[in-house]
Amino acid sequence: MFSIAAYPTYTLFLSFGFSTVFTLLVMPFVIRLLKRDGIGQQIRADGPQSHLTKQGTPTMGGIVILFSAFVTCLLFARFNTALVLLLLTMFATGALGFADDVESVSRGRSLGLTPKQKMIALTAISVLFCLAAVNWVGISPIVSFPGGLSVDLGVLAIHIPVGEAVFSIPWLYVIFVFFLLAGLSNAVNLTDGLDGLSSGTLLVVMIFMAMVCFMYDELPLGIFAVAIGGACVGFLWYNIYPASIFMGDTGSLALGASFAVLAVLTKTEIISLVMGGLFIVEALSVIIQVVSFKYTGKRVFLMAPIHHHFEKKGWGETKVVIRFWIISAAFAALGFALYFQLGS
Amino acid sequence: MFSIAAYPTYTLFLSFGFSTVFTLLVMPFVIRLLKRDGIGQQIRADGPQSHLTKQGTPTMGGIVILFSAFVTCLLFARFNTALVLLLLTMFATGALGFADDVESVSRGRSLGLTPKQKMIALTAISVLFCLAAVNWVGISPIVSFPGGLSVDLGVLAIHIPVGEAVFSIPWLYVIFVFFLLAGLSNAVNLTDGLDGLSSGTLLVVMIFMAMVCFMYDELPLGIFAVAIGGACVGFLWYNIYPASIFMGDTGSLALGASFAVLAVLTKTEIISLVMGGLFIVEALSVIIQVVSFKYTGKRVFLMAPIHHHFEKKGWGETKVVIRFWIISAAFAALGFALYFQLGS
Repeated sequence: MFSIAAYPTYTLFLSFGFSTVFTLLVMPFVIRLLKRDGIGQQIRADGPQSHLTKQGTPTMGGIVILFSAFVTCLLFARFNTALVLLLLTMFATGALGFADDVESVSRGRSLGLTPKQKMIALTAISVLFCLAAVNWVGISPIVSFPGGLSVDLGVLAIHIPVGEAVFSIPWLYVIFVFFLLAGLSNAVNLTDGLDGLSSGTLLVVMIFMAMVCFMYDELPLGIFAVAIGGACVGFLWYNIYPASIFMGDTGSLALGASFAVLAVLTKTEIISLVMGGLFIVEALSVIIQVVSFKYTGKRVFLMAPIHHHFEKKGWGETKVVIRFWIISAAFAALGFALYFQLGS
Repeated sequence: MFSIAAYPTYTLFLSFGFSTVFTLLVMPFVIRLLKRDGIGQQIRADGPQSHLTKQGTPTMGGIVILFSAFVTCLLFARFNTALVLLLLTMFATGALGFADDVESVSRGRSLGLTPKQKMIALTAISVLFCLAAVNWVGISPIVSFPGGLSVDLGVLAIHIPVGEAVFSIPWLYVIFVFFLLAGLSNAVNLTDGLDGLSSGTLLVVMIFMAMVCFMYDELPLGIFAVAIGGACVGFLWYNIYPASIFMGDTGSLALGASFAVLAVLTKTEIISLVMGGLFIVEALSVIIQVVSFKYTGKRVFLMAPIHHHFEKKGWGETKVVIRFWIISAAFAALGFALYFQLGS
């Protein structure tokens, strides 16, 4: 609607601003609503002691971020198949996270759905997304690494003739996309453990992802990415220490999945792992902690995920958050530089 | 040296990254050095009680920011008269701030030079800068407002023939530039009262200023601006609550002046007041407080500058800082949008 074809970068700029303002304005109503209904976060009992004061802070604030991205796209983006697919996947994972948050709140414990239920849902979503991306957006199942190496995950694909067309199931690529989407969703989910941590890191990552979309000539996806970035700024206003609201699984699962979807749709599956390096580090810290404890009986970190490790070392919540933002920005910039210099 | 002519935006990107890393690496040595010599900040006795714990935190960290910007320019920028003038003004105001910091530390009180001494020095610096800008860079003394209004501050200028050339003294413009430079220096200085507040706001403002320089076709100035931005990121690592170092007047005066100089050299004198709107608000809050108390005996704010007002209202230092960053980003974006849409 407001798309200024002559100045695509300016459209990105306006979309970012709109999404920020939208989130800023809508959030207070949502916070009041959630508070009235007593929808507060359950804090994990085995987390840092200082976090127990966060008990009862409203959660599910991610709904506003998703909604803001949607409205911004409606107003500023020209819809294409890729964008529709992206929005559908975002809302599907958002609904999954929402179910998890609701379960968690109503049962009054820190974990909602069982890991198995979550995984089944994430599998279904990622398989459907991947098949649609390959067959309807024309995404290639070839995965490129920075430096020139490419791996064709389209080998052994099953091709089913449908009338005159062919529906292909590149199952190796489908599995790869599942790991990417489920991995990033859960990684962002794990990162979401300190006030402002996930929203601030997503802000930076999404700005760089928007530049990738722009260079990949996918302006609608770029508008989506800056819309998420802008919404994260508006959300931060209320989410910074001491937080008035959390994004919940509604936010973290959907935003992690959206990031993975953007990576697939711009063919930056490997680059995105560099750009979202902080999420990967957070996820790895949990895996390392669990594996190490299981096999050696020793803990590598004072507490996992790694942000709690530095908190326990006495950095203070704010210092951990801002420093992690900076690290995340460095990862995102590095990934973008790789994309820019080596092509992808 | 590393200037990649074909990709000026990428040069900006690399300069930003270099300056960040440079500051990150050099700062710990400087912190250790300052600590050894007992060069700690004196905290104002009439500030918030909670700030008294900041007594003794090393100050003058701004030196590293200035030095990082200088090195980055040496490596990435092609020097022209404008950039040389900018660096000279930055170091001159930096030296003034340094003298202030040293006085403050050695006398063990929170105020260094007398306001009169500071003002005389700032006047000399701004007059010399303005005359050089007009005569050697060819800066026009016409000041443009967004929307098309222009005011010619070159009327009544004095022209002195020097051989074949003419040295002109547009004294109305000289006075204007003095108010801009002295105003912004002191405004940034006032903003520098919470951990990470001035560095974070300068970061955002400088990124937008770099875009202005780029559009104004002054890449060397753009490289300077991103170098300051990058140095602010590196500085933030150590400056965020609880801060290990402050930038001191060395930093705040020099960076405020650099911002004003960039505004003059890109002819965005009025736009820059929008971009640096937060600094203006901070300065105005002090003026309003003083004037109101003098004439009505009442205080408008719980404490001035305004960041202390919100701190006293119970926001908490981190919340004030991050929210002020967001407000500052909104001002900077608004100023940039005005520049982009209306020309300047």
